[in-house]
Amino acid sequence: MGGPASGGWTYSRAGVNRSEVSGALHRLLREVRYEPPPSRGRRVLLPGHYAGLVRIGRETIAVTTDTVGTKSLLAAEAGRWEEVGEDIVAVNANDLAAVGARPCALVDCLSLPRPDPEILAQIGKGLERGLRRAGMMLLGGETAVVPEIVTAYDLGGTALGFFPRGRTPVTGSQLRPGDLLLGIPSSGVHANGLTLVRRLIREHRIDLASPRAGGSLPIGRELLTPTRIYTGISEALADQPGTTAFAHLSGGGVRNLARLSDRVAFDLNAWPPVPPLFGWIQELGGIADAEMFETFNMGIGFVVGVRPAHLAELRRRLARAGAKDAVPIGRVARGKGVRVPARGLEFSGY
Amino acid sequence: MGGPASGGWTYSRAGVNRSEVSGALHRLLREVRYEPPPSRGRRVLLPGHYAGLVRIGRETIAVTTDTVGTKSLLAAEAGRWEEVGEDIVAVNANDLAAVGARPCALVDCLSLPRPDPEILAQIGKGLERGLRRAGMMLLGGETAVVPEIVTAYDLGGTALGFFPRGRTPVTGSQLRPGDLLLGIPSSGVHANGLTLVRRLIREHRIDLASPRAGGSLPIGRELLTPTRIYTGISEALADQPGTTAFAHLSGGGVRNLARLSDRVAFDLNAWPPVPPLFGWIQELGGIADAEMFETFNMGIGFVVGVRPAHLAELRRRLARAGAKDAVPIGRVARGKGVRVPARGLEFSGY
Repeated sequence: MGGPASGGWTYSRAGVNRSEVSGALHRLLREVRYEPPPSRGRRVLLPGHYAGLVRIGRETIAVTTDTVGTKSLLAAEAGRWEEVGEDIVAVNANDLAAVGARPCALVDCLSLPRPDPEILAQIGKGLERGLRRAGMMLLGGETAVVPEIVTAYDLGGTALGFFPRGRTPVTGSQLRPGDLLLGIPSSGVHANGLTLVRRLIREHRIDLASPRAGGSLPIGRELLTPTRIYTGISEALADQPGTTAFAHLSGGGVRNLARLSDRVAFDLNAWPPVPPLFGWIQELGGIADAEMFETFNMGIGFVVGVRPAHLAELRRRLARAGAKDAVPIGRVARGKGVRVPARGLEFSGY
Repeated sequence: MGGPASGGWTYSRAGVNRSEVSGALHRLLREVRYEPPPSRGRRVLLPGHYAGLVRIGRETIAVTTDTVGTKSLLAAEAGRWEEVGEDIVAVNANDLAAVGARPCALVDCLSLPRPDPEILAQIGKGLERGLRRAGMMLLGGETAVVPEIVTAYDLGGTALGFFPRGRTPVTGSQLRPGDLLLGIPSSGVHANGLTLVRRLIREHRIDLASPRAGGSLPIGRELLTPTRIYTGISEALADQPGTTAFAHLSGGGVRNLARLSDRVAFDLNAWPPVPPLFGWIQELGGIADAEMFETFNMGIGFVVGVRPAHLAELRRRLARAGAKDAVPIGRVARGKGVRVPARGLEFSGY
């Protein structure tokens, strides 16, 4: 059983050892060295960033690929599929948003144990809602019924974005000490940390149909809340002077900021009060602050780096783009890594 | 047990009912209606085709997504992973080839039960080989370790292609009665029909490490042979007058031809001798000809539609592109659907 007495739960203890995964992945990537000739398109170097970029003729295309992970298991347990359908779009659209790419098209890739028409209809409804929010078309997809491979629904997709005439990718390369960091609230846990949360729910025999203490929705529904889509924010700010970076705080939490630059530090000295849902999870598992901040978004799903002289104008634009709730969360400083001083946390990198 | 006595094996009986799958998928697609404004890119209508096409600025981008399906289970059974790594590229590159798009970039999407470094290194080697053959860069990827979702390796990817200046998509819309159909041989079963083949192997307790009667390689290796990549063929012919269609014969076998046009018929009156591997499978399962021709490629993995006046020139180009082995397999006729007269087969559509 979890709890502080036994040292507290971690993501690793819940089943996924991040360093083992990245070690194994490194073995794959080490084998892949081929660079095609320029007649096949030119890679735009952006290592470790949220999207891959390639120059094709006069256009720069951004590509992301991601799944909703084990959030689909929660969907199965709660018997609700629209939310994860929407998340297939959201997890990819937000990675496009993080490089300032305008979302264009999605292809979904679903691996299913059974062809359940009702579930697929609900996933379709969610996809439709996500596509509307992100402004993308469904351009194709693959639905494989492979009961010998999957025992549950594996729901992913790949998204394409581009840079409208005159826009350059927002990479964080312009970040400098003194820039302000604005945070845009998340809508909940999004699609990250669910392996850990579900483990705690099982350990504590929590009923998904009942609200947590202080909550109003059944906890299953609260956790399934679709991932907020930050496309409108990225579109409103990507072309503006004074916008120096975007970050999508997905798996890895605040460490995601370190993907933007290793020449500056991210001093999160004004992190807002953490929403009660995260406090509930933390308490349930006796989870350390460091583990929480590198597993969950802790209430902030998207971050914008801003030159101070442009703050007022950019906040006006954010408000018009539906993000009146943007809040200062810290600033860019000398050094490297990510700090949350109020919790005494320092992360050296992503 | 299978065999003609019990009516013969079918793909459905092996575990996947195609019409159930397409019925369920239809429920998803029915929900997705949103078309974004043209500022998000313009869809190029090519319904039912091998790739989705979108116009972004001055470029037309082609996108495909596919997995190697249950071929990964055969890889696990045989303990060999390079071939399926290569197939992640091949299955997608060949769908790009089928619309005449020049392959550019791949993102892989792997769902794994465990992060096994040796397996990932082998998959990486295969990816590298496939990327070189297709002339693509690896632009990103997602590797999810999700033991609660997958019990085996789910290996897929999404590929991007484009149309070099002056090239238009090869869609089959120019096909007309009298066009010749050239077939380019396959390298084996490719990544299709493996659910059925594996089922037969299990039923008959066949040892993957031994060759089939008349074979030289262990049957496991023979079945794993990487999918031939038809990029060079597509690149050699896509800009040529006289090229009227490409088809990739993947899942669905010869029925794939019906995706090109419902205004003409495909009369496969010269289908070449079927390679012994397919005969072995057919005999093993007592499988009907119709089932074989709509499940397997039966020796031909790619088809080119050709105006007769251009045949000699196009065959010269094919030979230079490494396809000296191209063979006439039939012709385009009035009517609709696909016929294999030597076997008395008629398929009304895809």
